[in-house]
Amino acid sequence: MKTLIVVCDGMADRPLRGLGGKTPLEFAKTPNMDKFAKGGICGILDPIAPGIRAGSDTSHLAILGYDPIKVYTGRGPFEAAGVGLEVLPGDIAFRCNFGTVNKDNIVTDRRAGRITEGTKDLAKTINNIPIEGVNYLFKESAQHRAALVLRGEGLSFKVSDSDPHFAGKKVETIRPLDDSPEAAKTARILNKFIEDANKLLKNHKINAKRVDEDKPPANILLLRGAGIVPRLEKFKDKYGLSGACIASVGLVKGIGSLCGLEVLDVPVDIKIKDSCQKALNEINNYDFLLLNLKDADNAAHDHAAQRKVSVIEEIDEALSIFSEFIKKNYLVVLSDHTTSTEYGDHTGDSVPIMICGPEVRTDDVEDFGERTVAKGGLNRIRGQDIMNIMLNLTYQIEKFGA
Amino acid sequence: MKTLIVVCDGMADRPLRGLGGKTPLEFAKTPNMDKFAKGGICGILDPIAPGIRAGSDTSHLAILGYDPIKVYTGRGPFEAAGVGLEVLPGDIAFRCNFGTVNKDNIVTDRRAGRITEGTKDLAKTINNIPIEGVNYLFKESAQHRAALVLRGEGLSFKVSDSDPHFAGKKVETIRPLDDSPEAAKTARILNKFIEDANKLLKNHKINAKRVDEDKPPANILLLRGAGIVPRLEKFKDKYGLSGACIASVGLVKGIGSLCGLEVLDVPVDIKIKDSCQKALNEINNYDFLLLNLKDADNAAHDHAAQRKVSVIEEIDEALSIFSEFIKKNYLVVLSDHTTSTEYGDHTGDSVPIMICGPEVRTDDVEDFGERTVAKGGLNRIRGQDIMNIMLNLTYQIEKFGA
Repeated sequence: MKTLIVVCDGMADRPLRGLGGKTPLEFAKTPNMDKFAKGGICGILDPIAPGIRAGSDTSHLAILGYDPIKVYTGRGPFEAAGVGLEVLPGDIAFRCNFGTVNKDNIVTDRRAGRITEGTKDLAKTINNIPIEGVNYLFKESAQHRAALVLRGEGLSFKVSDSDPHFAGKKVETIRPLDDSPEAAKTARILNKFIEDANKLLKNHKINAKRVDEDKPPANILLLRGAGIVPRLEKFKDKYGLSGACIASVGLVKGIGSLCGLEVLDVPVDIKIKDSCQKALNEINNYDFLLLNLKDADNAAHDHAAQRKVSVIEEIDEALSIFSEFIKKNYLVVLSDHTTSTEYGDHTGDSVPIMICGPEVRTDDVEDFGERTVAKGGLNRIRGQDIMNIMLNLTYQIEKFGA
Repeated sequence: MKTLIVVCDGMADRPLRGLGGKTPLEFAKTPNMDKFAKGGICGILDPIAPGIRAGSDTSHLAILGYDPIKVYTGRGPFEAAGVGLEVLPGDIAFRCNFGTVNKDNIVTDRRAGRITEGTKDLAKTINNIPIEGVNYLFKESAQHRAALVLRGEGLSFKVSDSDPHFAGKKVETIRPLDDSPEAAKTARILNKFIEDANKLLKNHKINAKRVDEDKPPANILLLRGAGIVPRLEKFKDKYGLSGACIASVGLVKGIGSLCGLEVLDVPVDIKIKDSCQKALNEINNYDFLLLNLKDADNAAHDHAAQRKVSVIEEIDEALSIFSEFIKKNYLVVLSDHTTSTEYGDHTGDSVPIMICGPEVRTDDVEDFGERTVAKGGLNRIRGQDIMNIMLNLTYQIEKFGA
């Protein structure tokens, strides 16, 4: 028996005035989810704990059974792993943007005109800066995005961002956030690294060409989301299961990678239907698969209620292909956090979850929504409960006691 | 957006034979609570954890987001803070009664005839006893009640009561409750303090007058509820919110005070309606307000079921003034613990809670009662979840992750 978890990123919402007081999930026509709910067991889920505003990273960690309060220090490590950097426990990692500064060090564009070409070459140049014996790993990602990893002795993640977070402001000098010599050293070498990188970038032929073409040059590195790479027990060792992950976004790929899941390659703009089909195909090769569907979250961040409804309906249609699968296996459908379309960001409200498969104690929820599932048979559970529940349902958990 | 928590002290109950198997809350006519429940989200709440018999002190600590298992050692510190003693972390504090002993040291009245006058003078006398370099702070409260604080090096709260808890028994010698030199020292100096106080009190002119008038003299201090004053992070620092507390009972005022809430002065016999009105007025000045309504608990301790029903109906009527408030703010109504009218004391049953305000995911509970709310959208939560849930609803919680 296999477990497939479909994470509908940011699908849960609050009641929206524009939808007559319904949430997008309540408003959308979701015959497949409703049918699954009817044959499954439902409940409300606190990704971390009641009221806690989870990120996608902390929530996915919890869903996979890791304690984010113990292992999560910042987004950098997961972004870095997500772009394919081989990070190691103890590495300090950052999210980066290629940005544009003028000669007064004012950020004129935090995304260097959403640069699409040449960042691989730019990254290559930056990888050759040696400072105080620390190794730098730098890798470009989609568009202006990149990740930076520091590896060496005596480093700390307790440092501030260089990213000023708004255009029109000066690049921030990185500051240590505690009194340790490690934080002081990390801040010092990062500031030197950024300065050196700036020199190398501004004279780079790719940027010369961009300036000629009247495009903003990618001449500055904006760092944020510092974190230390945690030592995570590999999924296979933790549970004895082979596992894989399908996600189009780097952050979730990074989580999967650091947890030891096989990260299956999909195009960044893959359609929901194709993601689901791929999951159905690939689950044959694994005991466990996590599929992340990003689009509902994007719509909510954009305050686009109708688009969120459409995405949910698209997800619902795509899920129909799992009707056979759940006769012998388990399908979990949930949202990793609430993203309020009105607010445009995550909130700490609970999310709906359903588990479908041959031996669940079905309840009388017939309609998969944030409010209906509160009467479901799972009652209220937490992200970190899910793996144990699934190991139990699939007869893969050791008896504790006799 | 503001949060107002109305704690209906001891309102929850068990089904009572005298009320046809209903609880007082189920039996009472509560049209306002029912209306609020209909427009809000309900659930059952374990103040500490399922089955744990909470006191008002431990429950209020949990409701305010502090872990009573970590910070609570006894009632003394909160009583002392509640009577206005300026306690400091590490102080050892006790609840005290002025009582009456005969010449054989037998307690003939644990409350010195519920003495109402002169305790301030008596307290002044006692404040001048120096023993082994320890500082004493002693302050009278309402009637026969008082609080004692010890401040100094090498003290412990691991000591027994001097209060024999029943009239007709000898004053207890205070004993150390562990083998530490600190407990031994604390017991030794307290016994000396009580002996010295007894000498000063029995000769005091106020007591001479009481004896003349055939009233029991307040000639002995009965100590109980030893605890060490915890170092509590101030509410403002913990949550970034300005907060206040309205309570007529010293214990809850003490909790508020030690948590750094502004304790707003109200008469000890304030009417429920006036308490609610004051809360509605004062919430304008704060982000957060906790209002404690004591009367239902008192009725239950007195085994007075009909009186408890009347108190609940009075609370219900008073709550009607919050109808406008909840259009833009959040109102939480709950009981801090169950007080069984039949048993006459707290029990560890869960309590009902409802949250009303603009963006809650309403459920179909239309009747606020211990049993009906179990089907509500909050399902089952704990006291320590409340603050996170409210910070989330009012958009005042940081995102954990990205």
